[in-house]
Amino acid sequence: MKNLGYYNGTWDEIENMTIPMGDRVCFFGDGVYDATYSRNYKIFSLDEHVDRFYSSAKLLEIDLPLSKEELKALLTELVQKMDTGENFVYFQATRGTAAVRNHIFPQGVRANIWINIYHKEILELTKRVQLITLEDTRFLHCNIKTLNLIPAVIASQRAKEAGCFEAVFHRNGRVTECAHSNVHILKDGKLITAPTDNLILPGIARKHIIAACKKLNIPVLEEPYYLEQLFDADEILISSAGALCLAADRLDGRAAGGKAPELVEKLQAVLLQDFLKETAK
Amino acid sequence: MKNLGYYNGTWDEIENMTIPMGDRVCFFGDGVYDATYSRNYKIFSLDEHVDRFYSSAKLLEIDLPLSKEELKALLTELVQKMDTGENFVYFQATRGTAAVRNHIFPQGVRANIWINIYHKEILELTKRVQLITLEDTRFLHCNIKTLNLIPAVIASQRAKEAGCFEAVFHRNGRVTECAHSNVHILKDGKLITAPTDNLILPGIARKHIIAACKKLNIPVLEEPYYLEQLFDADEILISSAGALCLAADRLDGRAAGGKAPELVEKLQAVLLQDFLKETAK
Repeated sequence: MKNLGYYNGTWDEIENMTIPMGDRVCFFGDGVYDATYSRNYKIFSLDEHVDRFYSSAKLLEIDLPLSKEELKALLTELVQKMDTGENFVYFQATRGTAAVRNHIFPQGVRANIWINIYHKEILELTKRVQLITLEDTRFLHCNIKTLNLIPAVIASQRAKEAGCFEAVFHRNGRVTECAHSNVHILKDGKLITAPTDNLILPGIARKHIIAACKKLNIPVLEEPYYLEQLFDADEILISSAGALCLAADRLDGRAAGGKAPELVEKLQAVLLQDFLKETAK
Repeated sequence: MKNLGYYNGTWDEIENMTIPMGDRVCFFGDGVYDATYSRNYKIFSLDEHVDRFYSSAKLLEIDLPLSKEELKALLTELVQKMDTGENFVYFQATRGTAAVRNHIFPQGVRANIWINIYHKEILELTKRVQLITLEDTRFLHCNIKTLNLIPAVIASQRAKEAGCFEAVFHRNGRVTECAHSNVHILKDGKLITAPTDNLILPGIARKHIIAACKKLNIPVLEEPYYLEQLFDADEILISSAGALCLAADRLDGRAAGGKAPELVEKLQAVLLQDFLKETAK
């Protein structure tokens, strides 16, 4: 298949799939998701993504109707139906279906399970990216991977309009994360990244970067940092499932980073090697 | 019909309606809505609700594919199909459909128009309600009536678990609004209500309460107020499309309000009279 949409046991190409109007996603965006990539039909870091998905669901008190092992088996099975092995593998759960809109949790209904798979490859790591900064006006639950994503949509659109790859959010100058990535800096040979509180998503690519730093004896500081430090960084790094570790060369239209390219290359080499090894044929 | 779901020109009972999986509501909650009530098949304050709907859409840069007059005519026509004239009349727009998930605004697609109508009457005004207070952890775009409603869902659920009607949000002690209502206080013969900034929805029922106060020579202060004032208020009032003006008698399990019942009754009488007059046969 060129792409695949799955909903509660039914699957087809996404364009042919429909969902009930009463799904709570329609009125409240009431759900959580996670996403990763496959290569050679092998799904990367599936355990970690599924663990985070269950954690997001638990934080919103959404009871998932299948076990982690069942979800992993389902994703693995559905990826096999694709025309190519290189895919974006996305899954979400919404808080059930009820014809009449009511904020209160519906009783006696099961969460709905969604999966979307389509061809996409992880990004080329050698290309530098451009960034803008934006005030972080999001809610205080950014540690949960919810479907309430309007601020991320608007920020992504602003980035695109500025010819940039991503928007870096800050709260009163404190750097949090990007619209759909985490952000980190390298300064004087150390990695600095925001701590995993309610202001950022605990990124799995972020965790892999920290592990790669430890392997390379790069000290890691998980602590708040600020816009001045971002502009003054030796390197600015962006990470997400599809962008393991990208370095920036411009920030708000000014030259930025680019002062520790060897360190960036070393980090990227470790991350890419792990990705290629885990997804080898 | 017992209830009615409409999507881009198709309509049926809500249970029979489906929407495409690629609607951006499914992945981003990317849309806006508004809602009011009908009585005797007449839709209350339709102009004001439609104006606010267009304003919400504009703030999110969603281009609506029909004029205000066309939307009003459509809502008026669909209400006629209902078994009873007393209904909740809900409408929303989402930022189009695209099979492949991408935060950036899709190009060359039209917004999707949704309508839901089902039997519901405005609430009985004489019954006192119970409230809880909760920290306001929402985003900073509460002036836009978006479909990113998870914090309102969770707060409504907490209120229900506490046996209450609504949750009153505050930011560091500053009272903003409720999960799905505005909140106001009466103190020493004056109405105090939070100003219409980005922290609250500019409620249409709120506007009607202010107009009713003017009619009754009750001074109105649109200014920030705090939890201490809420607990110390002569009366606490809740307003929304379905609850024109309800007074509370308990807050966080303690007795609250109840010190100016004649003023509450006068206000409610004006508001109810306007509602009944506009929706008379």
